[in-house]
Amino acid sequence: MKDIQNDPAAVSLPIDRVGIKNLRLPLLVRDKAEGVQHTVADVEIGVDLPARFKGTHMSRFVEALESWSGDLSYASFRELLSEVRGRLKAKDAHVTFRFPYFIKRKAPVSASPGVMDYQCSVEGRLDDAGFRITLGVEAPVMTVCPCSLAISGKSAHSQRAVVSLRCRFKGFLWLEELIDIAESSASSKVYAVLKRRDEKYVTEDAFENPAFVEDVVRAAASALNAHPLVTWYKASAESFESIHNHSAFAAIERAK
Amino acid sequence: MKDIQNDPAAVSLPIDRVGIKNLRLPLLVRDKAEGVQHTVADVEIGVDLPARFKGTHMSRFVEALESWSGDLSYASFRELLSEVRGRLKAKDAHVTFRFPYFIKRKAPVSASPGVMDYQCSVEGRLDDAGFRITLGVEAPVMTVCPCSLAISGKSAHSQRAVVSLRCRFKGFLWLEELIDIAESSASSKVYAVLKRRDEKYVTEDAFENPAFVEDVVRAAASALNAHPLVTWYKASAESFESIHNHSAFAAIERAK
Amino acid sequence: MKDIQNDPAAVSLPIDRVGIKNLRLPLLVRDKAEGVQHTVADVEIGVDLPARFKGTHMSRFVEALESWSGDLSYASFRELLSEVRGRLKAKDAHVTFRFPYFIKRKAPVSASPGVMDYQCSVEGRLDDAGFRITLGVEAPVMTVCPCSLAISGKSAHSQRAVVSLRCRFKGFLWLEELIDIAESSASSKVYAVLKRRDEKYVTEDAFENPAFVEDVVRAAASALNAHPLVTWYKASAESFESIHNHSAFAAIERAK
Amino acid sequence: MKDIQNDPAAVSLPIDRVGIKNLRLPLLVRDKAEGVQHTVADVEIGVDLPARFKGTHMSRFVEALESWSGDLSYASFRELLSEVRGRLKAKDAHVTFRFPYFIKRKAPVSASPGVMDYQCSVEGRLDDAGFRITLGVEAPVMTVCPCSLAISGKSAHSQRAVVSLRCRFKGFLWLEELIDIAESSASSKVYAVLKRRDEKYVTEDAFENPAFVEDVVRAAASALNAHPLVTWYKASAESFESIHNHSAFAAIERAK
Repeated sequence: MKDIQNDPAAVSLPIDRVGIKNLRLPLLVRDKAEGVQHTVADVEIGVDLPARFKGTHMSRFVEALESWSGDLSYASFRELLSEVRGRLKAKDAHVTFRFPYFIKRKAPVSASPGVMDYQCSVEGRLDDAGFRITLGVEAPVMTVCPCSLAISGKSAHSQRAVVSLRCRFKGFLWLEELIDIAESSASSKVYAVLKRRDEKYVTEDAFENPAFVEDVVRAAASALNAHPLVTWYKASAESFESIHNHSAFAAIERAK
Repeated sequence: MKDIQNDPAAVSLPIDRVGIKNLRLPLLVRDKAEGVQHTVADVEIGVDLPARFKGTHMSRFVEALESWSGDLSYASFRELLSEVRGRLKAKDAHVTFRFPYFIKRKAPVSASPGVMDYQCSVEGRLDDAGFRITLGVEAPVMTVCPCSLAISGKSAHSQRAVVSLRCRFKGFLWLEELIDIAESSASSKVYAVLKRRDEKYVTEDAFENPAFVEDVVRAAASALNAHPLVTWYKASAESFESIHNHSAFAAIERAK
Repeated sequence: MKDIQNDPAAVSLPIDRVGIKNLRLPLLVRDKAEGVQHTVADVEIGVDLPARFKGTHMSRFVEALESWSGDLSYASFRELLSEVRGRLKAKDAHVTFRFPYFIKRKAPVSASPGVMDYQCSVEGRLDDAGFRITLGVEAPVMTVCPCSLAISGKSAHSQRAVVSLRCRFKGFLWLEELIDIAESSASSKVYAVLKRRDEKYVTEDAFENPAFVEDVVRAAASALNAHPLVTWYKASAESFESIHNHSAFAAIERAK
Repeated sequence: MKDIQNDPAAVSLPIDRVGIKNLRLPLLVRDKAEGVQHTVADVEIGVDLPARFKGTHMSRFVEALESWSGDLSYASFRELLSEVRGRLKAKDAHVTFRFPYFIKRKAPVSASPGVMDYQCSVEGRLDDAGFRITLGVEAPVMTVCPCSLAISGKSAHSQRAVVSLRCRFKGFLWLEELIDIAESSASSKVYAVLKRRDEKYVTEDAFENPAFVEDVVRAAASALNAHPLVTWYKASAESFESIHNHSAFAAIERAK
């Protein structure tokens, strides 16, 4: 049967990235507290394509995922990328998993347990320069407006915000470390369960730590600057302003 | 050329609704202050289909829209539905426009002008029972938590929320009336521009009017109950809780 | 500490539904082939609220989920709803889980294995009339246009479409049964992995079974009409037309 | 009233970008055929912030938009950015408008008129290096699979795809030029209205021009390489495969 993908390209240009995306798969992820956790990932997977080939062989991406364990560790991720590079005869392979990640957390006073969810990503790339991972987390947080607090008696508007961190690093980094940095940068963490005495604590604590998105992103950047393993990061914060119908945002990117 | 749509259906079942959706179009809408405003609509348009026909003629929906003025009034909307019913030889025609609607608003103290946007919908139906319109609005608002305010000293968490109203009515109803009902049901309206003295006012005013989603939806329902023209409504509120990563919601539906 | 939720409501109106939504949780679901599968759910949970109470106790919803096993079966789902009704002192409790569901499928010729994903929902309600479940599935499929095939020589446009089924039933129904009905209604199923000989088979087979959205929704309705356990259903199909930038859709709803 | 934004920052780090986003506004855009068109934009607007200031003055972004004409031309856009830079006392200002853009098009045989919509963006940046615009368009198209066509008799699967182009340039570029490049790269354009004789033409024409996403992105890149004004571009294509539940994609980026 004709392999039209191997035909010469009508337009002889190299392609930076070609592959598949919006594929959903069950995934096992390393969990600092529990060892491993089950989640569900959205996958993007691709390679470079030299100028001389008309097309890549798309089915091989899914075959590579199928023959893989589905258990995401540093070693297994490298293996997957190596497999993709081999099957596709490519120089440059990349795979990104995006998934919700769950952490059990106790309410601050009552200690009622609840499960928090964070949208995370693990991006891997393998080429002649070697294997690199970029980790990403999005942590929901609460911000209390410092301006509002300074001018409105004891009252102040607050809102949900999200802190997004992506970083590259040496050695090994837990998603939990990035989530912790993101949550510590705002006026307060958020929780799944809060009893009345917890709600009192969280509200009062957040009002003790008012923060603009500028403060949030600087606090996150400062922690990532101080982190011995982090070599590059992009930190951003978006606040779903409770007094507006738009968001406030701030972003800092730095290669160390 | 063969008209396969007119073939007998392989499975002889009547279809409730068949048509097209996710079509985008420029639209002119009645504006209480300005007379008319330009916006952009997402359109759904359909008819019933008797058991004996294989298919409807989808291109006629777009032709009906094309031959229509694109200027949405009570009379022109009825005309569009009548046109759809005629072209498609249907008993039951329905068209829904969803669009952002803009209203200029002054900040409460400085009177700085700003444009607010509301996601609105106008649904029309024409069948043997006549022509009916259902209007819908989604208004962003601010809610201050009454529980948090009662237990946390002077502090309290607040957040953005959205009040969604859909209603049927006798006579004529402005989108502005529904938006006003929605915004009046919460702790405060939100604004595009707030100078510092406005922000102080809005924050303090919202703290004077703490409201659960339950309070919000009841206030909206109460206003719609009292409205002489409204014959049916569904009122709901969703609050993007600033202390959680989930929403609180409440809903009331009533035929008067 | 003051329980302001138990205060009398300022506006004395009963609320149909009040609760929380957009909460994400790991979930275990019954799997016909494997016994059980891990997935991730988006949860909505709510109750009615009598006119006399100002507010419901939102934290109890999350506590009910926390104290629940997270393992979704008929019996455990009823237990969860009963628990919600009890903790919230409500007459009417409802919980909806929405989650991707995965099924392994072999390519039709090469038998290459691949994982398919389907967006599913399980809605439960418990009130004085008893406990009822509504199941929902969304299955991606392929449609080949019968009109295009009849008039364009051997060529015809095809596209991805989605068949959505929701139904109520007596006894027990597998998600797999509904997915099978949805997939059998279109020109062809879709697959995660297709080798060249599979692609040839799927394309030719789909061209043997051209189907409008009208045909698709009627085939699904016909199968649900014939199903001995189904008591109510809503079947709809949406086709992401490859020759347009809008969708074609059709829907049939029936209480048997 | 205290201007807390002017306080020294607790963490003395410069911020790359701080501003607002998800603000919706009516917008007037240059239209090659009609002179001007009304649409609705989603706006992001921001500046850099030196290490020494705690916060930026967010209300000034909306004030700059309010005092602006809302009529987007090269000159007025530069003026807006200059205004933002001035009001915010910043070195680096950027504004992005994202909006649907409408073009009337006649069906290829019947000449039936229909309105096509394209998601477009205009990004502007003003700093010490001057004023630069980046234009973006997303054009829906149809792709017929060359592999399927080569192996499946006369049949072949087709699907909707989207071609996304972003580019920088010297002089002046119409959105229409980029849309034309995007649409010419695929198997066929798509249309709002197609009568049966048009559908026959479009289907047969598309089958004469089978194209992988690789072919599409190369054709677009080739046209942008040849364009005398374009100085940088990123071209990508995503195909919503009709035989899979995932997308195929390809991307080429080049600074000329």
